[in-house]
Amino acid sequence: MSSATNYSAIPAAEEQVSSIPSSPKNKTRKRVIAGVIICIASAIVISSAVVLFSGSSKAPKRNVIMMISDGFGPASETYARQYHQWREDLAPKDAMLPLDEIHVGHSRTQSSSSLVTDSAAGATAFSCGLKSYNGAIGVNPSKEACGTVLESAKHHRDMLTGLVVTSRITHATPASFSAHIEWRDWEPEIAEQQIGHNPLGRSVDLMFGGGSCEFLSNTTEGSCRNDQRDLFEEAKDQFGWTVKRTRQDFDAIRANEPELPLMAIFTPQHMSYEIDRNPSVEPSLKEMTAKALSILSKASKDTDRGFFLMIEGSRIDMAAHSNDPAAHVHEILEYQHTVELVKEFVRNNPDTVVISTSDHETGGLTVGRQVGEGYPEYKWNPEVISHVMNSSEVLANMWNQAIENKEDTVEYLTQTIIGDGLGVKNPSDEEVDRVLTWKSSDKTIEVLATYLSDIVSRRALIGWTTWGHTGVDVNLYALGEGTEALRGSHENTEIGDFMIKFLGLDVNDITARLTSMNKSSISGKIRTLWNQMSAEDDYTNMISDHQRYNN
Amino acid sequence: MSSATNYSAIPAAEEQVSSIPSSPKNKTRKRVIAGVIICIASAIVISSAVVLFSGSSKAPKRNVIMMISDGFGPASETYARQYHQWREDLAPKDAMLPLDEIHVGHSRTQSSSSLVTDSAAGATAFSCGLKSYNGAIGVNPSKEACGTVLESAKHHRDMLTGLVVTSRITHATPASFSAHIEWRDWEPEIAEQQIGHNPLGRSVDLMFGGGSCEFLSNTTEGSCRNDQRDLFEEAKDQFGWTVKRTRQDFDAIRANEPELPLMAIFTPQHMSYEIDRNPSVEPSLKEMTAKALSILSKASKDTDRGFFLMIEGSRIDMAAHSNDPAAHVHEILEYQHTVELVKEFVRNNPDTVVISTSDHETGGLTVGRQVGEGYPEYKWNPEVISHVMNSSEVLANMWNQAIENKEDTVEYLTQTIIGDGLGVKNPSDEEVDRVLTWKSSDKTIEVLATYLSDIVSRRALIGWTTWGHTGVDVNLYALGEGTEALRGSHENTEIGDFMIKFLGLDVNDITARLTSMNKSSISGKIRTLWNQMSAEDDYTNMISDHQRYNN
Repeated sequence: MSSATNYSAIPAAEEQVSSIPSSPKNKTRKRVIAGVIICIASAIVISSAVVLFSGSSKAPKRNVIMMISDGFGPASETYARQYHQWREDLAPKDAMLPLDEIHVGHSRTQSSSSLVTDSAAGATAFSCGLKSYNGAIGVNPSKEACGTVLESAKHHRDMLTGLVVTSRITHATPASFSAHIEWRDWEPEIAEQQIGHNPLGRSVDLMFGGGSCEFLSNTTEGSCRNDQRDLFEEAKDQFGWTVKRTRQDFDAIRANEPELPLMAIFTPQHMSYEIDRNPSVEPSLKEMTAKALSILSKASKDTDRGFFLMIEGSRIDMAAHSNDPAAHVHEILEYQHTVELVKEFVRNNPDTVVISTSDHETGGLTVGRQVGEGYPEYKWNPEVISHVMNSSEVLANMWNQAIENKEDTVEYLTQTIIGDGLGVKNPSDEEVDRVLTWKSSDKTIEVLATYLSDIVSRRALIGWTTWGHTGVDVNLYALGEGTEALRGSHENTEIGDFMIKFLGLDVNDITARLTSMNKSSISGKIRTLWNQMSAEDDYTNMISDHQRYNN
Repeated sequence: MSSATNYSAIPAAEEQVSSIPSSPKNKTRKRVIAGVIICIASAIVISSAVVLFSGSSKAPKRNVIMMISDGFGPASETYARQYHQWREDLAPKDAMLPLDEIHVGHSRTQSSSSLVTDSAAGATAFSCGLKSYNGAIGVNPSKEACGTVLESAKHHRDMLTGLVVTSRITHATPASFSAHIEWRDWEPEIAEQQIGHNPLGRSVDLMFGGGSCEFLSNTTEGSCRNDQRDLFEEAKDQFGWTVKRTRQDFDAIRANEPELPLMAIFTPQHMSYEIDRNPSVEPSLKEMTAKALSILSKASKDTDRGFFLMIEGSRIDMAAHSNDPAAHVHEILEYQHTVELVKEFVRNNPDTVVISTSDHETGGLTVGRQVGEGYPEYKWNPEVISHVMNSSEVLANMWNQAIENKEDTVEYLTQTIIGDGLGVKNPSDEEVDRVLTWKSSDKTIEVLATYLSDIVSRRALIGWTTWGHTGVDVNLYALGEGTEALRGSHENTEIGDFMIKFLGLDVNDITARLTSMNKSSISGKIRTLWNQMSAEDDYTNMISDHQRYNN
């Protein structure tokens, strides 16, 4: 788990970043108006920033790397560490994971609407420093936009900003730093805001992840939009984005000539689980992070601007939603590799801090489990996990495809899906029947995935209590000067507060601007969406209807 | 949660503590020999201590209060805090529990024999500072006695020592500080060692808790011994113990005239759960702790000796073994009250540190749970817990008694046991039938208790994955000068190491003495027991046969 990148050896890069679009094409009247509005808004932003921060212009140059391990509770850390220990045949003391070495406390996660948060409210607590309701993307409990640390970093401190995730880039966590919307599922709208259709103009300089479906016209296969807009084109034309769509193009990005703003969106939906990932098609979280750090550190080097980078191990959560212990542990270990890389960056760049925490726990995972009514042995079985070759999600889709192709033989199920895929050679009749009878049920493919997961979990003695989230406090990790303030037990909002203070931000000013711009109808469409549901609506229960793969 | 006791206002007490029995009665030849041996052993101990510590006699006077919340994982802390928050109608920030305020890190709990520890190995990690196998009481993986912090505090530093628990005083956690034996279930032998039948002589000055059955002759009803020895009499006669057996006698103890060594053993087995406790019969953990702190602080005041006190919230664990959320939360809240008291003591006595941690998690508790295959809401229901009037253990015994009395009507079950006891007015037919059919099964009463617990847990949406333990890292809390060293992630043995260093102890010397004394057959009986099983025996699996109420 050593970092391959030596950031201190990299030469300085030119500053090519601007919050004003460089060469807008006036395709439509709407776009012209939007462009003008953005210019005005940007002018207001810049002049306000000058006024506001003229007294604090000597604030030190600092970088914040906020890492979020979505759906990663305390038991998941133990689970990954003990799996690593078993796999490498280590003594307990020698099996500490990169996060263990920077453990400082925990974060209390409840939202304003529930003792058990979702990812949207969880990320909004970090981004705006306030508690909001489950489903809220950068809005407060009254559904009014709240300024985020990313936005204040950009518009007050002229910092570079980035989002690196393995989910759709429009998913709840990255969205809560870069958009304001009442309900997390309105991802096509979130994509619009992210590229720059936002009262503040563009706030993000770098986005790596999945989710091209939210950007592509509904004339394109697999689009998630209900209109014909092509946001990749809009991003390029109106906001000057460089857009990459393949691993090859990503690899070709030269870090010392970064063309910011830059997005690399690799997959229509979420990126693949680490256990399933084809490295010739998709980079890993660590690879994306290395590239992002190279670009941001070079673009800010020899200037007085720092950067804010949010990195999410997005699918740690999703594997737990599927109760899939193998996919879960591989996501965690990839996240730990990434942490190791980031820690090295922090050590080489003393003006940088890293914070790593989770928005919530997912799955109710326990390291040890009772199967049946016999009193359990005190143990669990890491070797069972080591035999799994694919995520339950992929295997469930394979089985579903076999059904569609009328190739769903018992032999294919027991040998290919369960035997080879899960590494389980002795499924019980009951386990096989459960999968076979799924075909004639009306249950979703996500339910099928949990059946497959359970075959592994029962043998590994890994416990789960839900396909959803639980309320347990999550571990808090930090490294860098000033992070002593994060020791101990904290509300999740205090992590947002820390970043605001550490970087000398003013999210309230951003909130005020968003509110006043919104009221003056600069963004009519956003305003309409914001008003679409009344403030009295209770979104909490809507989470139940929310497909867990979207969480 | 304020402390009623002002320790600083209490006058100094006489020193009445001696490691030599004050007035032995020569009842039997065996006892004479034992007494002589103990005198010799004590003389060796004292002279060795003088030699060993003559150079370090100026080590500062310090007190260590080691608090152990048995079976209390991270989710249990969240659960208790959120229950408290709901009950008191508090804002999240105002609902911090006493432990939250002194959160410093976590403890990694695996034993030498398993990734999932039991309480014996867990406590031995703290007491001896080494990893041993599940079931080990103060012995290393080779089943050789290991010196404990309590013993070194007594014999090297002349400190006062105490054990305050709500389990049997001979149970795994207190036993691991005060006895050396290969297998945790040999509690009658543990009781013998605790009173003074030990190669080192008596090491404990104060013991409060339950478990008189281990001390009473098998001619007494409810005895757990297979001999006719009365250890209470032996304790008084041979080792000078003051023995109290009732709450009234306990209340009558005057703290400024402590008659050490002192034991107060209130119940034949474990003390009652806090939710069931009759305060006129049994003191609470906080009350026992207040008395112990008064006695130990007064007995050590105006001297250069400090004290070592181990306090265990023993039955937090047992409630979790029963998957009983109501008994569990009341045990935790009583422990938190006790923590508040101890924190006040530490603030008033800067030479004192408190450490609080758990040996392991129990039950696989999760705050949030899915019931059925519908995707779960993100919530749980504290109000369900507030309606429960008794532990499932008590209610299961009531139902069993009704069966024996042929009074087991459906009405009694639904109205008295479930309706009044669990506070559940709408049990399903399935839930009622499950309890009714238990009668004709061969399942234990502990299984019945879990059926009753489940009626509550399903409605509260509290999840469980086992009747046993899980491996999750447990929270670590500390307050007092020098406890900065406990920040971050630690192996459980490092908590033992901290105490050894902080108090200037030498557990290796105690180990050497125990070994040499043992080899010279000072305690023939102990030696015989120690040799009863070969070093190759694997005790790990025996845990499965170990009744969970004994864990």
